[in-house]
Amino acid sequence: MSDHIVKAYDEDLESIKTMIAQMGGLAEDQLAKAVDALSKRDTDLADQVIQSDEKIDAIEVSLEEKVIKTIARRQPMARDLRDIMVAIRIASDLERVGDLAKNLAKRAHAIPDTLPRRLSAGVVRMGRLALEQLKNVLDAYATRDDVKAVQVWRNDEEIDALYNSIFRELLTYMMEDPRMIGVCTHLLFATKNLERIGDHATNIAENIHYLVHGRPIGEERPKKDTTSFTIFESTNTQ
Amino acid sequence: MSDHIVKAYDEDLESIKTMIAQMGGLAEDQLAKAVDALSKRDTDLADQVIQSDEKIDAIEVSLEEKVIKTIARRQPMARDLRDIMVAIRIASDLERVGDLAKNLAKRAHAIPDTLPRRLSAGVVRMGRLALEQLKNVLDAYATRDDVKAVQVWRNDEEIDALYNSIFRELLTYMMEDPRMIGVCTHLLFATKNLERIGDHATNIAENIHYLVHGRPIGEERPKKDTTSFTIFESTNTQ
Repeated sequence: MSDHIVKAYDEDLESIKTMIAQMGGLAEDQLAKAVDALSKRDTDLADQVIQSDEKIDAIEVSLEEKVIKTIARRQPMARDLRDIMVAIRIASDLERVGDLAKNLAKRAHAIPDTLPRRLSAGVVRMGRLALEQLKNVLDAYATRDDVKAVQVWRNDEEIDALYNSIFRELLTYMMEDPRMIGVCTHLLFATKNLERIGDHATNIAENIHYLVHGRPIGEERPKKDTTSFTIFESTNTQ
Repeated sequence: MSDHIVKAYDEDLESIKTMIAQMGGLAEDQLAKAVDALSKRDTDLADQVIQSDEKIDAIEVSLEEKVIKTIARRQPMARDLRDIMVAIRIASDLERVGDLAKNLAKRAHAIPDTLPRRLSAGVVRMGRLALEQLKNVLDAYATRDDVKAVQVWRNDEEIDALYNSIFRELLTYMMEDPRMIGVCTHLLFATKNLERIGDHATNIAENIHYLVHGRPIGEERPKKDTTSFTIFESTNTQ
């Protein structure tokens, strides 16, 4: 591309990176508030999160339009397209994170003040961990820090391990006391949402690696979520 | 655009539509098999679904590349970009549907042969409904049938209503017999997966409407999932 076009393309790319940063900041904020709302049984805060979700979606739409205009006008070469493809994918992951944070806030709404703290303690702990992963991977994207990205990618194993143990813990509460089943179901889904947010942070990390190296992370993704396969003994009561 | 370029663009667009159709066909097949696996407790079928998920992902990557090349080479006008934007979004929804079908198959793995059929009957029924929505919306995209798309969009209300009632039904089984809690949790998540597949079919319907009319469906989306907000009475047992 001619110098003039290279400069214009670089400006477009900066603009796209800025929009990703905005989406990222909003997603972090939404997640932090949703976890807080859950922890403090704060339904007003939960409502704020639910209503703010559309802001992230709006930026994603703008980003989509910007990306298309950029490609049409600048006709970037194959290697420049990597930035753009990664931006589209990361924007999609961040939009999902925002959605999951909103769903988390809805669950926070459904948990009564009277719920013993020990039941939700695990979920809140996992929330803080997911938030840390998200912050770190967004930092990694801003600075194209591949080392940091791979660290986030490896830490997904810890989130999955925590998910498995919280899941089992909640099941014991449900089995001990059937009156806990309803509210523990909310916590189960909340925990699942956080595990999925962790997965999105991992997706973003993989994309950063691809951006920097032009190829995917070589190793097998450390997927340790065993809950889908957990078989429970049950006697036929028919 | 000159006639020559218009023709080349139309061919690119046909190629993109074909890839969407392939993704759609695979997603339908995956969902049908996953529901069957759940219904028949067929773990081999479940395994097939789990292993086949990567095919859909592979087409999405090809589609992404095709879209970018098309925009860069043909420099389509704003109104032609609508087709492309819609294609990207629909591809993303179909990739998620494939993922959800895979997760459904994992749950099928975890359900023992001895499980009474009445427990999973509701989930299977919902699976058939979600499959029907998916088939109809993919037909609607192939023929740009806006009437059919809006029908799918409205039927989401039925899926959500079914989701709510199955959810409550499963809770009663769990409360009646704590030994059912573990396996019913799998069914709860399976039901949630199907509700989300229904949402993706609705997203695709909205995109078809946008494609045909250039604006979103005017009405409020009929979101009737109340389970996130369901508050359960629970006595503090500390």
